[in-house]
Amino acid sequence: MFQRIGIIAKHADAAVRKALAATLAVLKTRHIDFVFDENCAAVLTDANAHVVAEDKVAEERDLVIAIGGDGTLLRAARIAFPANVAVLGVNLGRLGFLTDLTPEQVPDGLNAILDGNYTSEDRCVLQTAIVRDGDIVSRADGLNDIVIQKWNTARLIAFDTYVDGRFVHSQRSDGMIVSTPTGSTAYSLSGGGPILHPQLGAIVLVPICPHSLTNRPIVLADTATIEIIIGTEYANESRVTCDGEAMPEILPRDNIRITRHAKTIRLIHPAGHDHFANLRAKLHWGYAPC
Amino acid sequence: MFQRIGIIAKHADAAVRKALAATLAVLKTRHIDFVFDENCAAVLTDANAHVVAEDKVAEERDLVIAIGGDGTLLRAARIAFPANVAVLGVNLGRLGFLTDLTPEQVPDGLNAILDGNYTSEDRCVLQTAIVRDGDIVSRADGLNDIVIQKWNTARLIAFDTYVDGRFVHSQRSDGMIVSTPTGSTAYSLSGGGPILHPQLGAIVLVPICPHSLTNRPIVLADTATIEIIIGTEYANESRVTCDGEAMPEILPRDNIRITRHAKTIRLIHPAGHDHFANLRAKLHWGYAPC
Amino acid sequence: MFQRIGIIAKHADAAVRKALAATLAVLKTRHIDFVFDENCAAVLTDANAHVVAEDKVAEERDLVIAIGGDGTLLRAARIAFPANVAVLGVNLGRLGFLTDLTPEQVPDGLNAILDGNYTSEDRCVLQTAIVRDGDIVSRADGLNDIVIQKWNTARLIAFDTYVDGRFVHSQRSDGMIVSTPTGSTAYSLSGGGPILHPQLGAIVLVPICPHSLTNRPIVLADTATIEIIIGTEYANESRVTCDGEAMPEILPRDNIRITRHAKTIRLIHPAGHDHFANLRAKLHWGYAPC
Amino acid sequence: MFQRIGIIAKHADAAVRKALAATLAVLKTRHIDFVFDENCAAVLTDANAHVVAEDKVAEERDLVIAIGGDGTLLRAARIAFPANVAVLGVNLGRLGFLTDLTPEQVPDGLNAILDGNYTSEDRCVLQTAIVRDGDIVSRADGLNDIVIQKWNTARLIAFDTYVDGRFVHSQRSDGMIVSTPTGSTAYSLSGGGPILHPQLGAIVLVPICPHSLTNRPIVLADTATIEIIIGTEYANESRVTCDGEAMPEILPRDNIRITRHAKTIRLIHPAGHDHFANLRAKLHWGYAPC
Repeated sequence: MFQRIGIIAKHADAAVRKALAATLAVLKTRHIDFVFDENCAAVLTDANAHVVAEDKVAEERDLVIAIGGDGTLLRAARIAFPANVAVLGVNLGRLGFLTDLTPEQVPDGLNAILDGNYTSEDRCVLQTAIVRDGDIVSRADGLNDIVIQKWNTARLIAFDTYVDGRFVHSQRSDGMIVSTPTGSTAYSLSGGGPILHPQLGAIVLVPICPHSLTNRPIVLADTATIEIIIGTEYANESRVTCDGEAMPEILPRDNIRITRHAKTIRLIHPAGHDHFANLRAKLHWGYAPC
Repeated sequence: MFQRIGIIAKHADAAVRKALAATLAVLKTRHIDFVFDENCAAVLTDANAHVVAEDKVAEERDLVIAIGGDGTLLRAARIAFPANVAVLGVNLGRLGFLTDLTPEQVPDGLNAILDGNYTSEDRCVLQTAIVRDGDIVSRADGLNDIVIQKWNTARLIAFDTYVDGRFVHSQRSDGMIVSTPTGSTAYSLSGGGPILHPQLGAIVLVPICPHSLTNRPIVLADTATIEIIIGTEYANESRVTCDGEAMPEILPRDNIRITRHAKTIRLIHPAGHDHFANLRAKLHWGYAPC
Repeated sequence: MFQRIGIIAKHADAAVRKALAATLAVLKTRHIDFVFDENCAAVLTDANAHVVAEDKVAEERDLVIAIGGDGTLLRAARIAFPANVAVLGVNLGRLGFLTDLTPEQVPDGLNAILDGNYTSEDRCVLQTAIVRDGDIVSRADGLNDIVIQKWNTARLIAFDTYVDGRFVHSQRSDGMIVSTPTGSTAYSLSGGGPILHPQLGAIVLVPICPHSLTNRPIVLADTATIEIIIGTEYANESRVTCDGEAMPEILPRDNIRITRHAKTIRLIHPAGHDHFANLRAKLHWGYAPC
Repeated sequence: MFQRIGIIAKHADAAVRKALAATLAVLKTRHIDFVFDENCAAVLTDANAHVVAEDKVAEERDLVIAIGGDGTLLRAARIAFPANVAVLGVNLGRLGFLTDLTPEQVPDGLNAILDGNYTSEDRCVLQTAIVRDGDIVSRADGLNDIVIQKWNTARLIAFDTYVDGRFVHSQRSDGMIVSTPTGSTAYSLSGGGPILHPQLGAIVLVPICPHSLTNRPIVLADTATIEIIIGTEYANESRVTCDGEAMPEILPRDNIRITRHAKTIRLIHPAGHDHFANLRAKLHWGYAPC
């Protein structure tokens, strides 16, 4: 049962205010202890609420509620998962892949969840290490994806990919997307990747504009260790990004090592949550051109 | 250790004769008991050899050697896997995705394998049942894929797909490929599907020419039960095929149910077998147009 | 100016009746001579109207109005274009790629068109000849596409393609779509083809599930002569279809020859017709998954 | 007949030296006037040869010979086409899409061409203007392509596309490739574009990783004027490149206007040149995975 809750909001506006008010009404009626971040504080003054910095919102909590879109939920998850804290998403009226409770559903839906009537789901996270001369010089986590990409250039980059120490291929392309099942509906989809079911223990490698007709996305077991080594002359024109955030610059011969993180994101859904219904709604399945 | 061996050949020709002769030379030196099929018998008379019908070649054997290409290996595997018999492929000079021992490698390679120096790998198999009014009216196994496709018409078919009892989508298309990781380099690849690593416990659904821009291949855990129900008016113009063989006609409201088979194919490779090296060679990775 | 009009309807139902009534109201007010087909006659009795067989509806007319969807317009165009008769589409409430006048727009829109205030557009047609031992044994026209495809089999077919007498390639696949710009939003799109602007004088070749990763759609000038010769052993398992209608069976060594038809379809649109607006509406451009 | 020839080489090395020596042998025997650039001068001293700066190599010439790969030929063409000077490519042993004469073929092949026995082909060029407040602030030509792309960011950019003054769509993606038929086998192919025959008067728009499943390449007549306007907040993270060279930075509300250049590249091929044979060789057509 969730007894201590942190709340994080996308930004400070009227839509957030409405969703937050609905959320707080439930929490107060149930006398549940909560804290919220400054975006929340900016839209709703509450004498009882403790305002904390965004990155403290999961501290000593057992649930973080993210009010916003999928981006906000990922931000919340990034804070919550290292501490094994679960995450619930309340959207602002537009269904997300990850945020399935609308503000209107909050009174009934959140009460049901707090009564223990919910579905929980673990989502895999990737961790990247940039390894230089055998030492890890930087680390980052990707809930959606780790992307190796050309940077500040119109030219292709070239790199070698290894899986579990075995050479996979040399590729000339705009880069490579390494995606979780969660990320398979994000940038990976734009790059032509398949949709991975969240319960599949897999990682997908999606080449970005490969300069060869013979490449395809490759789906690996999530126990795989993926290593990418960028060609010496291209290191300066390449960059590693995690969920869209750039990591520090890489140097020639750096090894970009990607594995599954030991911890997972724990997503809370209303009971009866249906992943395929979400995909149909978000991807417009059922729509045909004529 | 493999003590009792069955041999099956693609057809009866000089290339098969050469590969078979190399194989028998090893078996005889080691005094290993073997039987072979009629294609073998047609190219090589051997007083010691028991000739058996192709479909008996795995009976009371612990290894079946397939001489030919990937198609021959799949034929052998289809016979061998229900009896838990392992399969080894000897190609006719052209590397296969599955048949990695060349005739020239047979003397050393086969001896090493029979010495116990090999890699073994389990490959998943799909089983399909056509269910009519609650009864199974026909069954078949797919080592590569089960395909639901339009038949004898230029018009699209329409069908509904369910996974674990949940509705996935209605689709109008030329059909749907349901593929194992093994099949992901066969018809599934032609249809635009991703490459699945053989050790990934997954099944991929690949739409064939979907009449919608929003479809993508979907990769599921291999524990999934997939059900496809073809639209009433299209049953007559649709057909289910398993590894390219047509199943009996379907009737309106038939349910095509696909699950992972309880048994797996056990593939024997020379020690040091490298799946990615095979992909590189077969898919021409490393080749770029300019 | 359009003085003599033929009308053809998709089928006989209430939606057709409504669109037809709106159309006739305009024609009668303007004392324009018209005939209509039996689907029209079934929904609306009119003492003044001449009922003619569908395939006579363009005879001695200068405009054919098609009431229905894109399929109905193509049926009308097939009848009208050999006689150089223009075609106008009235949809049944759902925008088509080709039928842009809604029933509600008919009173104003049709009057404007009959006042001479319209846009006219020529669309290219393909003609196919099956050539056997130098003689043409059958012919058909494709407003959307000519498709060479596997038939009654789960196996690939193999064929050679020539353009202007030059060998292009041998291909193993499920077939080949040869499409006009009009057809580029139909089956060609399902097969992965590009969208061709209607004013581009081009023909696109789109392989269907090619058994090779190196194939791509090829766009040719519409002056090209395309010849496809199906491998001897596959003739029996292949079929040529024109706009979805099967042509007679082919024999080994038949040459399927495709060229642009000397005549074009003349499509009438309301003034200010915007092809890209149609594409946006039909293809859901502007929609993004998240 | 070609009487005055300029020569340009990829770089200065032994392979260039060999091809250049073969070329000069022919020219001298025929007493043809020639100049060459500094890369040529570095590998072959010749008292009779005038050495000129690379960008002067087409001045008062009627043919420029490019020794190298497709990149070198494009460099030569960029210099030659504004002065209506033809271009011939001699490769360094590896067939190019554009450079079809091998060094071994030079003695016979070049003599035949200089005898007037050749095929000539016009290739379209694109010109881009960046228009700011109605004024053109920079211009560049693209023989392959003009690319609008994200720059120095992992985030998508957003832009609007217009054709002939009509709105096509708003797109969120990594960018857009606007390609000539020549460029359709270059970056456009990596981005998933179709192959355009060089004699087709067309321009293709290929979205790069569009954040939507409903986008496709669009092929337009080469008379089209294409305008792309990048979303105000993305101007800083976007860049226009022509054949891989970055243009000056753009500002919010800049209009990137692309049209066909009035002049074309005139490519000289040996008689009997076969474009499809080149495509087969370069794209590995005929190769199948199994």
